[in-house]
Amino acid sequence: MANNIQSSDPVRRHKVVVCRDLGPDVMPLLRERRELELIVWPEDKFCDRKWLLENIPGCSGVLVMLSDIVNEEFLDTCGPSLKVVSTMSVGYDHVKLPALAQRGIKLGYTPDVLTDAVADLSVMLALMASRNAKQTLSVVQNGEWPSFSWAPFAFCGRQISSSSQKRTITVGFLGFGRIAKATLARLVPFGINHVIFLSSPKSKRDSPNECAEFERQFGVKSVRRTADLQELARESDIVFVLAPGGPSTHHIIDEYFLRAMKPTAVLVNPSRGTLVDSDALAKAVHEGWIWGAGLDVVEGEPNVTADHPLVKEPRCVVLPHVGSATFETRLEMASLAARNLIAGVLGEELEHELGLQSYTSP
Amino acid sequence: MANNIQSSDPVRRHKVVVCRDLGPDVMPLLRERRELELIVWPEDKFCDRKWLLENIPGCSGVLVMLSDIVNEEFLDTCGPSLKVVSTMSVGYDHVKLPALAQRGIKLGYTPDVLTDAVADLSVMLALMASRNAKQTLSVVQNGEWPSFSWAPFAFCGRQISSSSQKRTITVGFLGFGRIAKATLARLVPFGINHVIFLSSPKSKRDSPNECAEFERQFGVKSVRRTADLQELARESDIVFVLAPGGPSTHHIIDEYFLRAMKPTAVLVNPSRGTLVDSDALAKAVHEGWIWGAGLDVVEGEPNVTADHPLVKEPRCVVLPHVGSATFETRLEMASLAARNLIAGVLGEELEHELGLQSYTSP
Repeated sequence: MANNIQSSDPVRRHKVVVCRDLGPDVMPLLRERRELELIVWPEDKFCDRKWLLENIPGCSGVLVMLSDIVNEEFLDTCGPSLKVVSTMSVGYDHVKLPALAQRGIKLGYTPDVLTDAVADLSVMLALMASRNAKQTLSVVQNGEWPSFSWAPFAFCGRQISSSSQKRTITVGFLGFGRIAKATLARLVPFGINHVIFLSSPKSKRDSPNECAEFERQFGVKSVRRTADLQELARESDIVFVLAPGGPSTHHIIDEYFLRAMKPTAVLVNPSRGTLVDSDALAKAVHEGWIWGAGLDVVEGEPNVTADHPLVKEPRCVVLPHVGSATFETRLEMASLAARNLIAGVLGEELEHELGLQSYTSP
Repeated sequence: MANNIQSSDPVRRHKVVVCRDLGPDVMPLLRERRELELIVWPEDKFCDRKWLLENIPGCSGVLVMLSDIVNEEFLDTCGPSLKVVSTMSVGYDHVKLPALAQRGIKLGYTPDVLTDAVADLSVMLALMASRNAKQTLSVVQNGEWPSFSWAPFAFCGRQISSSSQKRTITVGFLGFGRIAKATLARLVPFGINHVIFLSSPKSKRDSPNECAEFERQFGVKSVRRTADLQELARESDIVFVLAPGGPSTHHIIDEYFLRAMKPTAVLVNPSRGTLVDSDALAKAVHEGWIWGAGLDVVEGEPNVTADHPLVKEPRCVVLPHVGSATFETRLEMASLAARNLIAGVLGEELEHELGLQSYTSP
């Protein structure tokens, strides 16, 4: 408990444990609060479980990362003083929600703030997959540029913007939430003029006239909702996979879907690796059922090695899950997690609290 | 003259030479014209000069690539029958313009049609440079993803879209022609809200109120024209170099410019390599004067080897001049070059003819 500098100060009455140093821009938010007795995992790697369990007894709040498992053991070790768990993430697979709900503990998280960073990356992946960025970058990196012989169609990729050769471009979204809409907004000035999307059957429509309203909102010729995966595959020039993971969407992009896509189309997955059957996708690109793929996530990550079929495929761009990796967004996530922690400890309303009502027994 | 299949046909009276096979989508445009006696360089590499000089005597038109030098020797060899040279390129450094003008020969070229493909690539390069795409891609390609230890700011790049951490984004353009404007239009929904540009002092203003009109046209808060390179460098979060090459712009992006840029900014050059001092840029990125660079062109290309300082720099994305390399755009360039050739031979108006008035003696 070396970091607990002023435990004798009577004003500091709320013990909080922070599982990762959040850097010089965010830590002062916590250090400046004299009401807090602050304990910070001192190393720049995943918080050690043993250290964590030794330090959380009697705490009022804990700020955790995706790698810190919040289960019964964790909660029992904290004891009845615990008021809030604040995770610096939009996901909460690492948190046992019913156990929190049962104990009346609040869960803070950081949704929304990463929408723009992920939408930016989605556009980048669509462009990189269409324009052969991995291949052409490696031509230069491998020193092959000097011996390259120009030809009218050498290095040619697919154009994502409309052209005199192709005036109609349809973009398809599997999932049509905030990130999908932010991605679409960015693509409109590329000359995208038609949109087709498939949302969870359970998701409620924005309004009875939602498609007409989307057409006006985004300034495109047509927006259509479909319940037919094959239609989404068949009609799209780019398919963005922007839906939640979990069993209900496992391998929803499979061989059957990929075989229905256009040979000129690309698949972009910035959401969760489990939605895409990696073997089917590698085969689809290798055999030319589709043009290419841009992936920020792969099933089984980070155990994705250099001989993974998707990594070996020249027209599959694979990035190591960096969708939210901008200083601006990570700073905002970290400071929001800190603010959620403080609010929870002080009994105030959290800026972003996950509703746990459905887990409490009636 | 093996390709001259029907030279005995009296209808085929215009001999034309085509310096590259333009593929199955474009060649029929030429083959179907019975007025043409068509001679095509048969190999899929640069047209051999000896072959060319043997085949052009007496021709009415020649369709050339960037690699075919059109000088006095070329024109004298063609003889007085030559009416048109049609180049499949937007540039014409390979054509001796005064010599054409003197002889009253028309020059067809292919501007405009590559605007969208290059603007797409410009956005891609800005995103790749900002988001560390070269580094993160290589982490995966080199099999380093499995051993990667997550940290709150690992892999973090700069966000090109606006965020709650940074609400004001200024994009700067060196050169503000068609491609710059098409690039700007694509960036507006990313939350770009301020624009600064520097155009050639000789370029005429679009109108006395051009900046106010640009603000309305693009829907941004401010557009400003500057004549001060240092101001452009100082204020921009992204600098796009989209100006012509040649002696007047040689190394216009030099150490002095780069030192004035923000440490979080990126430089994007999709135009001509000669505008940027490569050594200064490599130093700027290496020493952190700027965040990164996205380059489709490098001075001295294609003689850019794997040990080139820019290629070695992890935050310099270098692509092998693929700005117009989409099937859609190259097809349009090739078919426009074919149409220019046919029109010139038949004495009709060219779709895109370069004005050579300034080269004819009064």
